[in-house]
Amino acid sequence: MNDNHSIINKGLRGVTVASTKISDVDGQAGKLIYRGYLVQDLAERTSFEEIAHLLLFEKLPDEKELESFTARLKEARDIPREIFEALKTRPADSLPMDILQASIPMIANHDPDIGNYSLEACQNRAVSLIAKFPGIIAAWERIRHGKDIVPPNKELDHAANFLYMLKGETPDDDAKHFFDVGLVLHAEHSFNASTFSARQVASTRAHMYAAVTAAVGSLSGELHGGANVRVMEMLKRIGSVDKVEDYINRELDAGRIIFGLGHAVYKTDDPRALILAPMAEIMCKKIGEPHWYDISKRLEEKSKAAFKQRKGIDIFLNVDFFSASLYYAMGIPTDLFTPVFAISRIAGWTAHVLEEQFAGAAPKTALYRPGSDYIGEYCGPEECTFTPMDER
Amino acid sequence: MNDNHSIINKGLRGVTVASTKISDVDGQAGKLIYRGYLVQDLAERTSFEEIAHLLLFEKLPDEKELESFTARLKEARDIPREIFEALKTRPADSLPMDILQASIPMIANHDPDIGNYSLEACQNRAVSLIAKFPGIIAAWERIRHGKDIVPPNKELDHAANFLYMLKGETPDDDAKHFFDVGLVLHAEHSFNASTFSARQVASTRAHMYAAVTAAVGSLSGELHGGANVRVMEMLKRIGSVDKVEDYINRELDAGRIIFGLGHAVYKTDDPRALILAPMAEIMCKKIGEPHWYDISKRLEEKSKAAFKQRKGIDIFLNVDFFSASLYYAMGIPTDLFTPVFAISRIAGWTAHVLEEQFAGAAPKTALYRPGSDYIGEYCGPEECTFTPMDER
Repeated sequence: MNDNHSIINKGLRGVTVASTKISDVDGQAGKLIYRGYLVQDLAERTSFEEIAHLLLFEKLPDEKELESFTARLKEARDIPREIFEALKTRPADSLPMDILQASIPMIANHDPDIGNYSLEACQNRAVSLIAKFPGIIAAWERIRHGKDIVPPNKELDHAANFLYMLKGETPDDDAKHFFDVGLVLHAEHSFNASTFSARQVASTRAHMYAAVTAAVGSLSGELHGGANVRVMEMLKRIGSVDKVEDYINRELDAGRIIFGLGHAVYKTDDPRALILAPMAEIMCKKIGEPHWYDISKRLEEKSKAAFKQRKGIDIFLNVDFFSASLYYAMGIPTDLFTPVFAISRIAGWTAHVLEEQFAGAAPKTALYRPGSDYIGEYCGPEECTFTPMDER
Repeated sequence: MNDNHSIINKGLRGVTVASTKISDVDGQAGKLIYRGYLVQDLAERTSFEEIAHLLLFEKLPDEKELESFTARLKEARDIPREIFEALKTRPADSLPMDILQASIPMIANHDPDIGNYSLEACQNRAVSLIAKFPGIIAAWERIRHGKDIVPPNKELDHAANFLYMLKGETPDDDAKHFFDVGLVLHAEHSFNASTFSARQVASTRAHMYAAVTAAVGSLSGELHGGANVRVMEMLKRIGSVDKVEDYINRELDAGRIIFGLGHAVYKTDDPRALILAPMAEIMCKKIGEPHWYDISKRLEEKSKAAFKQRKGIDIFLNVDFFSASLYYAMGIPTDLFTPVFAISRIAGWTAHVLEEQFAGAAPKTALYRPGSDYIGEYCGPEECTFTPMDER
C-alpha cells in the first residue's frame, strides 16, 4: 500500500524515471533532439547509418568512422540459416510483429558470446540487431508468400537493402531516399513506451536481446507503433476525400479515436509528421494514387476542427499520420508498417539498453520496481480466513 | 525535461503506478496476500490450479469449478507440433529463458482467434499460456539432450505433469507436493519487475502474448528471477559448510552481492522462503546431499551477521534462497530454475494483463509513458548546429 494516490493511473505521465543523454522531446515547442541535434536538421541530411552511430557511440561519424561502421553493419546482416528454418515452421498468417518478437531470442541463441556482459560485447549485440532486423522482416515477407529469401546486397546501404530484400529488386532513388528519411525520423524518441520496456527489462540485468524483445512487444500495441497500421486501415475504410467528414463524425460519436492524431508528449504537430507529409504526397502521386495523401490532408484539417468544436481541444498530428500513406505508396504491405518502425527504433532501443546497463548517464543500482495500491477485498478487517475445499 | 529530480534513478521505488485487486505485499510485516488471502494460508493447502483460478477469476474455486478449470487446463496443454519443429532448429546450448521467450510469440502464431480482444478470448489466452509453459520447458530439456519429447499425461495434475514431461517418469509424492507448493508460492507478487513489464506492454493494447513475452525477458535478469540460478551456482562454488565464511568475506570485500538475500520490498524474511526451507531440507536429505541445505543455513546465519557488522544493516532472505537447493534436490537442471519460476508466475502475469486491459481495478486510458531528464550535451546554449559530413 502507498499513500501517494495522486499519480495513480496516469501512466507515469510527467514522472521522471531516469536521466538520459540520448534524446529529448520538447512537446510544447515540437522539438525532438537526438544527442543535441534537432531532428529537423538531421532528416534528409544524414543517413540512418549516421544516426545509428550517433545514438550508439554519441557522435556523428566522420567519413572514416562511417565507412568502418557501415562495413560492420553489412558484415552483421547475415542471419543464421537455422533461424530461417524456424521461421518456415510458422503459419503464413502469423502477425509479423510476433514473428519479429520470436526471432530476437533466436538471434540470442546463436550469439557465441552470450555470457559476456562487457560493454564491447553489448555494443556488438546492438550492431548485430540493427543489422539483422531488416533481414528478418524481409525474409518473413518472402517466406509467407512462398518465395525464395533474398540475401542482402552489400552494394546497397541499410535502407535500400531492406527494400531490395523485401521485393527482390533495387528500389528507385526516391524510394531509397524517403525510406532512409523514415528510418532517421523513427530512430529515437526518449522514454516512449517501448524504450521504457527495454530499459525496464535491462534494469534486471537481463541481456540486450531480452530487453529488445520486450520493446517489440510494446511497439506492437495500437496505442504505440501499431498505430501506423491503424492509420492505413482507416484511410482504406474512408476510401475517398468526400467521405472524410462522415467518417470523423461517426468515430467521434462512437467515442473512438482517430488514429495518427494525439500524442502523450507533443502539444503541437509532431515535427516528424511535417517532414513525412511532402514525401507521402510525392510517392502517392508517383504511383497514381494521390487520394491517399488527399484523404490524409482533409482528415487532418477536418479532425482538428472537429476536436476544437466538439471538445474545445487542439489535437495534433503524430508521426504515424503520414508515414502510413508514404509506406503504402512504397509498396510496403500494411501489416509490415509496425515492423518497419522497429527496423528504425532498434537503434534507439539498443542505445538505451547500453545507457541503462553501463551508466552512461547516471548510475542506477536498482531495477524498476514500482509500488501499487491494493484495492482488493479482504474478507474482514484483516486478511481473509482460508476455507478448505470441502467447506467452499 | 522535468523538474521532479527527486525520484530519478530510484527505479520507481515507492512510486504508486496503479491500483490492483490482485495482490498486496506488506514488506514491513512480511505479508504476501493473493486476492485477500495470506500466502501462508494458501501454501500446502491449495494446489497451483486453485491459485491460478483465484488469480484469474477472483475466487478460490469450489469443487465443481476446480474440476472444470482443471479440465480446461489439461485440454490446453497440447502444444502445436510446428513449435517443436521450430525448437529443434535451436542450438543445444541456447539459454532456456531465450527458448521460452521465443516460444510465446510462436504460440500466438497458432491462435486462430488472435484478432479477438474480448475478455473471454483474453481469458482463454491466459489459460492456454498457463497450460503450455510446462510443456515448452520440458520439451526443450528433452530436445537439447536428443531425447524424445514426452507428451502430457492427463492423469497427472499441473505440478506432477511437468516433472513427468521433464524426466519421463512419474515423480514421487514428496516431489509432486513440494513442486506444487513452489508453484503456489511463486505465482504472484504484485508489481515486481516482470509483472510491471507485462502491464506496461499491455497498456499499449498489445496482445497478451506480447506482454508475457516481455515479462519473461524481465524475469531472466539476475536481479529478478535469474537469481535462483545464481544462488545454486553460489552454493556449488562454496561447496561445503566450512567454506561459507570465507566466501562471504571475499564477496563482500569485492563489493559483490550475496544472491538470495535482500529484496526491493521486504524488510523481513520473505514469508515464502520460510515455507520453502523445510522442504529443501527434506529433499536434500532424501537425495543424500544434505550439505546444500546446510550450506544455505550457515550462509543465511553468517551473512546476516556480516551485513550487520560491516554495514550496520539487517539483510533478509528472499524467495530464491531456498528454492535453489529444493529444485536442485528434485533433479531439476540449474539453468531451468528461472523457467520453473516462469511456469508459476505466468498465472500472476496473465491476471495482471487482464486487469490492465479490462479495468478490473480502476480504468486506465493511457499507456505507461514516463518522463526523463535530458542531461546530454548541447553544442551551445541551444541545439547543436548540424555539420555536414564533409565538414566533420
